[in-house]
Amino acid sequence: MSITRVAIIGLGLLGGSIGLAVRERAPGIVTTGFDANPDVRTKATERGLVGTVCESAAEAVREADLVILCVPVGAMKAAAADIAATLPPHAIVSDVGSSKQSVADDLAAALPGATVIPAHPVAGTEQSGPEAGFATLFVNRWCILTPPSGADQGAVDALAEFWRKLGAKIEIMDPQHHDLVLAVTSHIPHLIAYTIVGTASDLEEVTRGEVIKYSAGGFRDFTRIAASDPTMWRDVFLHNKAAVLEMLGRFTEDLTALQRAIRSGDGDTLHELFSRTRAIRRGIIQEGQDDERPDFGREH
Amino acid sequence: MSITRVAIIGLGLLGGSIGLAVRERAPGIVTTGFDANPDVRTKATERGLVGTVCESAAEAVREADLVILCVPVGAMKAAAADIAATLPPHAIVSDVGSSKQSVADDLAAALPGATVIPAHPVAGTEQSGPEAGFATLFVNRWCILTPPSGADQGAVDALAEFWRKLGAKIEIMDPQHHDLVLAVTSHIPHLIAYTIVGTASDLEEVTRGEVIKYSAGGFRDFTRIAASDPTMWRDVFLHNKAAVLEMLGRFTEDLTALQRAIRSGDGDTLHELFSRTRAIRRGIIQEGQDDERPDFGREH
Repeated sequence: MSITRVAIIGLGLLGGSIGLAVRERAPGIVTTGFDANPDVRTKATERGLVGTVCESAAEAVREADLVILCVPVGAMKAAAADIAATLPPHAIVSDVGSSKQSVADDLAAALPGATVIPAHPVAGTEQSGPEAGFATLFVNRWCILTPPSGADQGAVDALAEFWRKLGAKIEIMDPQHHDLVLAVTSHIPHLIAYTIVGTASDLEEVTRGEVIKYSAGGFRDFTRIAASDPTMWRDVFLHNKAAVLEMLGRFTEDLTALQRAIRSGDGDTLHELFSRTRAIRRGIIQEGQDDERPDFGREH
Repeated sequence: MSITRVAIIGLGLLGGSIGLAVRERAPGIVTTGFDANPDVRTKATERGLVGTVCESAAEAVREADLVILCVPVGAMKAAAADIAATLPPHAIVSDVGSSKQSVADDLAAALPGATVIPAHPVAGTEQSGPEAGFATLFVNRWCILTPPSGADQGAVDALAEFWRKLGAKIEIMDPQHHDLVLAVTSHIPHLIAYTIVGTASDLEEVTRGEVIKYSAGGFRDFTRIAASDPTMWRDVFLHNKAAVLEMLGRFTEDLTALQRAIRSGDGDTLHELFSRTRAIRRGIIQEGQDDERPDFGREH
């Protein structure tokens, strides 16, 4: 099967980037789009995020071969309900959400009989909204597909081919395993970053001005992640609860062990950990998953 | 008083950057330097980090107006002892360490009668060693001076003027307050980053390859900080123990509250925190303390 018409529901950072990437890298594909926010639709039209910005989700999907839901994972069920009546029988329904079991369940319930292949491109920035997207967001990033058991292989292959056209690399994964992996590589890092930025904001002995002035000591890195979209992240934690709580338990155990090492003056334990964490950074650079320049290539 | 001869003890990222910054921005100042590691001395000579690389710390400081100790805070006492016999009576002794009360105590004990003005330029990258330094490291960064009570004002002013020549902005602070501020803006962020990278490395259900592949979800940011110099950071935690444990207590309280919110499905608490953490990021960008481009300006 061949994908020539794609409908994008939700025109923020992810939806907008998909639209721009199609325009630049797969210009033969026709795109339509919709966003529930009229201001976003106006900006999407101005930036040309999709070929046609429609006035309803139902209208946007009417002739689509592939529908990609780019809304917070807590809004998937409602978004799916909105397209149920006009979804072409042959269309693939996919998404870009950061939790996959909850999305699989929600889409299957809302769209009985539809070809649902959930997906998660592991890419983004701290910015959000229709102005934030760009065509190269997915280049050299992994896109994880989590087809349900018994999924149509032709549909999986077509979706994989679509993401490859946008520059992504493809992995197929079980949704539960996806949710565990992303809990540690994405969800817990965000939770920790939000927490420390909140802790620093609430101190009385140290002013907010001091926190800002001396943030180059490391703190500023966390503020980037903690500037991510609040609704998207609220939904991720509520929809990947079990895996997040499991990984959070591991993290706090490890942190407590380090706290004890600091209290008892056990420098060897600290040095041993601080030495072996460098290896993971080297692996990430070697695999092309981060900028190798010092300080991420920040301007000095 | 005027500083025309500067001795740099320790020629890693910080010491090397000071030397290069002097060469570029204050070429009238003569620099000497020493590093306990002969390989570092060789590389320092090759890169021209200082005008003269000496064979001992005692020799390097013999004619200095200002001595800057650029060694891990656990090595300050020994470094000060090495220069005690040849230190000119008029010379200012300073440092770049990330904890200030311990350094003040160690230098005062090792150098009775000397003019000691501890300092901390809040700047760095994840890299270390004599190849890592660059001349613009201190531009638009804050350098905190923590003069002891009764310090000679002329010496404080001269040290401040030296750092301004290197591009830094100056703040004067009490050492205990410095240690509390840096615990939250630098030390706890590093401890958390080291911890989560260690947690991710030790998982059995999620492979190291998966952690690396999907690190663009947020985890990779933490690996940069967790690639910092192990000895330097071990020493920071052992020498700023009280402030680090205090701030770590606040952080874990806040994290526990979020854990409870996730477990109970309290989305409002999550959304409220995730919304207000954005303000700190805006402040940091406005104050010129981070790159405003999305994703720190990483290449996409």
